[in-house]
Amino acid sequence: MSMDDNALFDDPRGLTSAEAASAVDGAQNSGVERVTRWFEGHTDLESRFSSVFRQAMDEVLDGQRTGRYDVDTLEKTEKTYLGTKVEIVCRAAFNLPYGDDMDYRICDQEVDAKFSLEGKWMIPREAMGHLCLLMAANDRMSSFKVGIIRISEDVLTRGGNQDGKRSISLAGRSHIKWLCREGKLKSNLLLGLDSATRDVLERVPVGQSRVDQLFKYVHGRIIDRNAVVTVAKQLDAPKRVRDARHRLGPEGVVILGHQKDSPRVAAALGLPTPEKGTWIATRLVPAPNTGDGRPLAWIGGISYVTARADEAPHPAPAIDY
Amino acid sequence: MSMDDNALFDDPRGLTSAEAASAVDGAQNSGVERVTRWFEGHTDLESRFSSVFRQAMDEVLDGQRTGRYDVDTLEKTEKTYLGTKVEIVCRAAFNLPYGDDMDYRICDQEVDAKFSLEGKWMIPREAMGHLCLLMAANDRMSSFKVGIIRISEDVLTRGGNQDGKRSISLAGRSHIKWLCREGKLKSNLLLGLDSATRDVLERVPVGQSRVDQLFKYVHGRIIDRNAVVTVAKQLDAPKRVRDARHRLGPEGVVILGHQKDSPRVAAALGLPTPEKGTWIATRLVPAPNTGDGRPLAWIGGISYVTARADEAPHPAPAIDY
Repeated sequence: MSMDDNALFDDPRGLTSAEAASAVDGAQNSGVERVTRWFEGHTDLESRFSSVFRQAMDEVLDGQRTGRYDVDTLEKTEKTYLGTKVEIVCRAAFNLPYGDDMDYRICDQEVDAKFSLEGKWMIPREAMGHLCLLMAANDRMSSFKVGIIRISEDVLTRGGNQDGKRSISLAGRSHIKWLCREGKLKSNLLLGLDSATRDVLERVPVGQSRVDQLFKYVHGRIIDRNAVVTVAKQLDAPKRVRDARHRLGPEGVVILGHQKDSPRVAAALGLPTPEKGTWIATRLVPAPNTGDGRPLAWIGGISYVTARADEAPHPAPAIDY
Repeated sequence: MSMDDNALFDDPRGLTSAEAASAVDGAQNSGVERVTRWFEGHTDLESRFSSVFRQAMDEVLDGQRTGRYDVDTLEKTEKTYLGTKVEIVCRAAFNLPYGDDMDYRICDQEVDAKFSLEGKWMIPREAMGHLCLLMAANDRMSSFKVGIIRISEDVLTRGGNQDGKRSISLAGRSHIKWLCREGKLKSNLLLGLDSATRDVLERVPVGQSRVDQLFKYVHGRIIDRNAVVTVAKQLDAPKRVRDARHRLGPEGVVILGHQKDSPRVAAALGLPTPEKGTWIATRLVPAPNTGDGRPLAWIGGISYVTARADEAPHPAPAIDY
């Protein structure tokens, strides 16, 4: 076999090696492009990924049993597992089939799921030549990143850990095709509380008392089911909320949900409207005779406003929750 | 300091070393005894541990997202994490406080949680001198074991893996104080299906169609929420069950729950009564004019019996579910 024969054998299209390399590059890039376009075809892409990370972190934190709300407090095995959970939740969220060698198969491409809290993805040898869906979430910053890269020698660091995994090099990072570069992660209410409020919560035992404190001191912000069960360290968030309403009513605190008269009252008071499985609390007092600019909500024929800190407590009106 | 002083210093009670060793043994055994008695003070001990293993395995399998029901199909990181999940669920089930060095503190004893699917517990060096709560669960056999042992050189194997963990030796096993030697694990319905039934299920896509097949072919056995969401690969088991009732009604299949007229009908037909979050299906036909020994259920003024395979389908009666 002559050199030319060999060249033809290597590339049946009869291209020069430079042309062939460029064609291969093009085909590989088109893989990244196609997968990117596939993801971008989801109009709710950002909120879908946001839910993936929120759910995965909340499930591994297991707040209802452990009271934890900070991924930094996870044990090592739990942090390792978090990557698996993200892979599972992401597969379900986008209904992704298994690949032959990698986690997913998307647009005929083998795609491996790689999650890292710090955005320091460790790439296994087996991923060489395949795509990686790079995912990172920062719960303190309420942000996340998702990108796609084709793994090659060019994008990896030289070294490698004892498992032979290597990270994406600084130069390699420029090859990441970002799906969400600064994604907005659903916020973690408990993690975001200031330390004074957290101290107030922790002064009472976990359970109903702490749920009461949560709704007594965190006003005007959406509180989700997970925050309630984490503070309660028990299930049945709706029951905890109903009990908190009874206990806090005499002080004027109302806890609006997503049903019946709640959305109307929330809107009238200028508060965000809770979705199913979320609540928002505020303290009400009867509106002063002369309006002072605060939004009014009419409840049972009387107008109420959100109380200022210096206004004396007044029993909450009966709301049709 | 004389030898005698030294001896007194070593044991202020002035015992001989043999007596001292025996006293230490006694104190250590009394620790095992006290923790054992503490657990045995729970009258529902076996069912509580059964729930711990069932919940932990079901959560890591994550059937609603993955469709999995066999712990043998878990990935390595998931199997490692299963031990952590059992520790967490067990802590919550018995409301156990953290130890200083080990997972739990029970009756003033440091107790480490050790779970193994195969009952091959790997004991870390740090557990030396402390108690271990040894737990194992076999989903195929619907059985589990729970025991307590004090870790000493005497009960461990010589070797050790790369992490310096050693297993309980054959001789050491005789020192395990069993809380549940042959505990009855809540059964895993899908894992226990015969292969013919499993084939029938897998012939249709996951989702409502497969839920229909489940209730069409698995009769007279309690089917829990987890089995439904695993077969459906989606949430909202009650909705899936309601839809299956509509689809299977024309063939005579009824799916009894825990509410309204369901328990009465189940009892009349001689079936187990479903608890909340569980169902039981059967196929009904009008009772023959001359009784043939099958239990009768009166529904809407007509008596029904569980159909034999050779009886032609008859539309199901309207049951107040």
